[in-house]
Amino acid sequence: MPGWKDNLTIVLVETRNPLNIGAAARAMLNFGFKRLRLAAPYEVAFREARSAAGAASVLKSAEVFPALAEALSGCTLVAGSASAGRRIFRQPRYALSEAAALLRAHLECAPAALLFGSEKFGLSNQHLSYCHWTLKIPTNPACPSMNLGQAVALCCYELASAPRTGSRSPEPAPASRTRRGATAGEIERLVERLTAVLDASGYIHARTRRSNVLKIRRLAGRLDLSTGDAEILLGMLRQIGWKLGQPE
Amino acid sequence: MPGWKDNLTIVLVETRNPLNIGAAARAMLNFGFKRLRLAAPYEVAFREARSAAGAASVLKSAEVFPALAEALSGCTLVAGSASAGRRIFRQPRYALSEAAALLRAHLECAPAALLFGSEKFGLSNQHLSYCHWTLKIPTNPACPSMNLGQAVALCCYELASAPRTGSRSPEPAPASRTRRGATAGEIERLVERLTAVLDASGYIHARTRRSNVLKIRRLAGRLDLSTGDAEILLGMLRQIGWKLGQPE
Repeated sequence: MPGWKDNLTIVLVETRNPLNIGAAARAMLNFGFKRLRLAAPYEVAFREARSAAGAASVLKSAEVFPALAEALSGCTLVAGSASAGRRIFRQPRYALSEAAALLRAHLECAPAALLFGSEKFGLSNQHLSYCHWTLKIPTNPACPSMNLGQAVALCCYELASAPRTGSRSPEPAPASRTRRGATAGEIERLVERLTAVLDASGYIHARTRRSNVLKIRRLAGRLDLSTGDAEILLGMLRQIGWKLGQPE
Repeated sequence: MPGWKDNLTIVLVETRNPLNIGAAARAMLNFGFKRLRLAAPYEVAFREARSAAGAASVLKSAEVFPALAEALSGCTLVAGSASAGRRIFRQPRYALSEAAALLRAHLECAPAALLFGSEKFGLSNQHLSYCHWTLKIPTNPACPSMNLGQAVALCCYELASAPRTGSRSPEPAPASRTRRGATAGEIERLVERLTAVLDASGYIHARTRRSNVLKIRRLAGRLDLSTGDAEILLGMLRQIGWKLGQPE
C-alpha cells in the first residue's frame, strides 16, 4: 500500500563519495523511505555505491539524472538542506523540526523532493534556486557542517517521527514483566534475614544492635524493591546464612 | 563555562571501523558534545581514526579503556542505544525522544554515559547489564539496524534539542541530607563483592556463573542506590566475606 513516505524523493546532488551514497540509502531504509535520485553524481561513486552491500533495494531502484532540474520532475515541493555558513538565503528557512512538519503535511497529499548538496560545497546558489524553502539542522556554530549520510539520517528520522498523533508513550511492558512493589511484610522478612546474617558474621555488635536493625530497615525501605527482587535477595541471604551455619 | 553538555560521555564499545569513530566524533562536535570514550576498541581502528582529519579535538581528548566497566567511572546514569532485533530487554526501554528528555534532565545535575555497541553485534547482554535503561531509535522493522555514526548523530541531535525541563529535577534537599546517586564504579564494586560472597557461599554454580553476574548487576542497577547506601552494603558484604574466609 503506497503511503505518504512513497511521496518523498531524496535527491543527492553532485555527490562524490560512494560511502555517503550508501549511508544515505541505508538511512532512508531505516526510516521507510525508498525513492532516491542522484543528480550529476560523480560517476565512479555511484557505480561503487551500487556494488556495495546493504540498502541494496534503494540503490538498485535509484535513478540518475545528468542535471538537477530533471531529477525534480513530478515533485510539487522542493526543499533543500543547507548549513548556514556565510550565505544569505533568499527563501524561507526553517529549523529541521518545523521543516519536517511542513514536508510531512505536503507528503500526505503530493510528491516532494528533499535536496542534499555535495560533501564539499553543499547546495550551490543555482541548486538553491530550485528550492521553495531550505531547512537547517541546528548544529553548533563552531562546527556547523554535517556529514552527508548523517544529515540524511536526521532528516529521515525527523520526517518519520513528525507527529500525526503525538502519542509518544513508552512501550507497554509485557504482562509477565509487570513490576509489583514489595509489601511491607516481604521487606520485613528481608530485614530479619539480613540482620541474622550480619549477626552471624559479626557485623552487628550487641551494644548497637537496636540502632543497626533500624538502619537496615530504613535501607531496605529506600531500595524501592519489587516483590521479585526481594525474593532474589532473600534467596541469596538464605544461602549465605546456611554457609555461615545458621539454622533454616 | 561547563554546561550540561559536558556531563555527557559517549562510550563506543568494541568499535571496529575507524570511519565510524570519526563520524561519531564529528556528530558530537556538530551538536556541542565533547567527551568521547572508547571501550575495548579494535586498536587499529582507533589509531586510524585519530590520524584522520575532522573532529580532531574530540578524538584527541578521547580516552580508551580496556573494558566497559572502567569507561563508565564517574557516571551516575548509564543508558544504552540498542536496536530491537529478537532480544528481550530486561531494563526499561524508551523511544529516542523520551530517552533524550530523561537523559537531558539527568545531565543538568550529574554525569551520564550513553553507550553504542559494535557495528556488527551492537551491545551484548553483558554490556546491557551496565545500563539503567535502553533507548530505541524508531526504525523500520524491515531494516532496523542503523549505521553507528548515524545513530550517534541522531542521539546527539535529539539530546541537543530536548527541551530544558525544570520540572523533572528533584527539589533540592537540605545540604546535610543531599542524596548523591551511586556511580557506575561504586555499583560495580558492590556487584563484585556480592558475587564473591555468593561464590563463597555456594549460591553461584560454575555453569551459570556468567548469567548470575549479569542478574546481579541488573539487580544492583534497579535498586537506585545512593553512594551512602552502596557504602553501607559494601561494608556488610566485607564483613560477611571475612566470616566466610575470604581474603580482604
